[in-house]
Amino acid sequence: MEYIPIISDSTSYFESTASLPLELGGELPGVRIAWRSWGTLNEQKNNVILICHALTGNADADLWWSGMFGPGRAFDETRDFIICSNVLGSCYGTTGPLSANPFTGRRYGPDFPRITIRDMVAVQHRLLRSLGIEKLCLVVGASLGGMQVLEWGAMYPEMAGALMPMGISGRHSAWCIAQSEAQRQAIAADAEWNDGWYDPARQPQKGLAAARMMAMCSYRCFENFQLRFGREVQEEGLFTAESYLRYQGKKLVGRFDANTYITLTRAMDMHDLGRGRSSYEAALASLTMPVEILSIDSDILYPKEEQEELARLIPGSRLLFLDEPYGHDAFLIDTDTVSRMVCDFKETL
Amino acid sequence: MEYIPIISDSTSYFESTASLPLELGGELPGVRIAWRSWGTLNEQKNNVILICHALTGNADADLWWSGMFGPGRAFDETRDFIICSNVLGSCYGTTGPLSANPFTGRRYGPDFPRITIRDMVAVQHRLLRSLGIEKLCLVVGASLGGMQVLEWGAMYPEMAGALMPMGISGRHSAWCIAQSEAQRQAIAADAEWNDGWYDPARQPQKGLAAARMMAMCSYRCFENFQLRFGREVQEEGLFTAESYLRYQGKKLVGRFDANTYITLTRAMDMHDLGRGRSSYEAALASLTMPVEILSIDSDILYPKEEQEELARLIPGSRLLFLDEPYGHDAFLIDTDTVSRMVCDFKETL
Repeated sequence: MEYIPIISDSTSYFESTASLPLELGGELPGVRIAWRSWGTLNEQKNNVILICHALTGNADADLWWSGMFGPGRAFDETRDFIICSNVLGSCYGTTGPLSANPFTGRRYGPDFPRITIRDMVAVQHRLLRSLGIEKLCLVVGASLGGMQVLEWGAMYPEMAGALMPMGISGRHSAWCIAQSEAQRQAIAADAEWNDGWYDPARQPQKGLAAARMMAMCSYRCFENFQLRFGREVQEEGLFTAESYLRYQGKKLVGRFDANTYITLTRAMDMHDLGRGRSSYEAALASLTMPVEILSIDSDILYPKEEQEELARLIPGSRLLFLDEPYGHDAFLIDTDTVSRMVCDFKETL
Repeated sequence: MEYIPIISDSTSYFESTASLPLELGGELPGVRIAWRSWGTLNEQKNNVILICHALTGNADADLWWSGMFGPGRAFDETRDFIICSNVLGSCYGTTGPLSANPFTGRRYGPDFPRITIRDMVAVQHRLLRSLGIEKLCLVVGASLGGMQVLEWGAMYPEMAGALMPMGISGRHSAWCIAQSEAQRQAIAADAEWNDGWYDPARQPQKGLAAARMMAMCSYRCFENFQLRFGREVQEEGLFTAESYLRYQGKKLVGRFDANTYITLTRAMDMHDLGRGRSSYEAALASLTMPVEILSIDSDILYPKEEQEELARLIPGSRLLFLDEPYGHDAFLIDTDTVSRMVCDFKETL
């Protein structure tokens, strides 16, 4: 079965035909961007919220972050004009490894160029300018999304009115790089991998599933697994924790592409606010807009020392803590609390 | 190249011809046990220390735990008679998936039966009895080794004089089970896997390497990776953290067998002091010999809550903390401190 990402009917597409120079060299001859919006742009054009999604996310923020949407919540269609676009390099409608390479006529596959968080943000910037938007009242996102939020502040400070990065650091740690590399190697071990030139109808499912299973462990934490599964066993003799992970692996394989997984995790590994700037510290010191940083106590991927560092280096920023036994994924789970935090921040803007 | 484990010339072998009934059903028609010893059994036969090794370890404790050996150290040949045997199901000389199945004449491979920690301990017990040993002054080990230490206390309380389990719990957590399952799935994704019936000359190297890479992350911790690697890049453009992990994966593939990895991690998942006993609490309460439990502060696999639970449930036991930024593997790294702790414990016995 060919992998077909499910993309909402409400999705819009923006074709940017100008070539896109890439930070690490080379260029893309043009990009297509899948995006969605909710609410209405007001006359002053000052009610725009940009949501940046995480690794396997897409433009459908109302689906994967549904608890954040609604009247009186973080993303309120009656007041806000909310935009979310699928990131460059992804497989939910924006140009990525599954797209046709205009130079060869076949899919980019493993030939898709190395991209960075900054390339993703540059693409989002093109989309927003095409919509006539000159100011974002808030840029918000977690994980890979949080990396984009920080780069928004560094690349377009005149446009990014306020930042709310969650569960993230200013530069990807050796720990995160190592885990991503182990996951990429699981994909490369798959019988169908073929150096990335797999038949899209038969992608390296087992390797991608194993990668996702590893990743799911790192998105949660000891306590979360223990409370949910303990040593419970399923009828077929598998521990519930095993069944759960297998299900999660299978689910991702049905909705995500292996080369895309590699492209995006490599972009995450390159995340470093300091690269090509006078220094890491200076890059963070340049963020003079209002910034609130969410730290998830039980996050083993981006431990709180990293958000404390951000708070120390970003002038006037504020650090919020989410004390939940969920791990990194807490931003997706405890949306009541996270939504309230976003609302409180919006009140101050 | 066929995988050939390197086994020390000093290794002895004990062939136990009596069939071995297995805890989960079935039996092995006999077992071979690879073992080593250091020092001399004294006349009172009361100077025996049994070392239990971890997942990919072997009988060569003087190699993988070298810092613990020497005059005045934990394992002192001038005073102690120290024994270490390769566990049942492993590939360093003891019967395991690489052994010939006497019923078929070919290797057991994936047909090797499901075994448990208790089966491993029963096999060690046979070895020790064959050597005329009736009493162990100390049973010591970390990780999978620590599981054996605890089962020694529960299965042979009259023989296990004192226990020192390190970096371990009384029953394997959902968190550990999940990580092991992700690793097993990486092996199963490999092109050479063939449901475990791979040609030993061409084992699923990439999958096993990916599994090891994941495991290495869990054996260390955020701080350890950050201090060692940071965002340093190698000449070939890889992050040092990536190179390091790839090297670790490759190294394991050269010395370990994939079916063995699966057999032993499954045995770890079955670790539960309470199984088949009146209760988990009662099983731990039955350990009335001196017990000291080592907790590694930075261990993300077996967090200190687990050792605190052991200390609470094992009567009169004492809890020691190793405050090092190494993660689970600290027991292998800070051998000065661990050796001193073992010496101090021995003094009290």
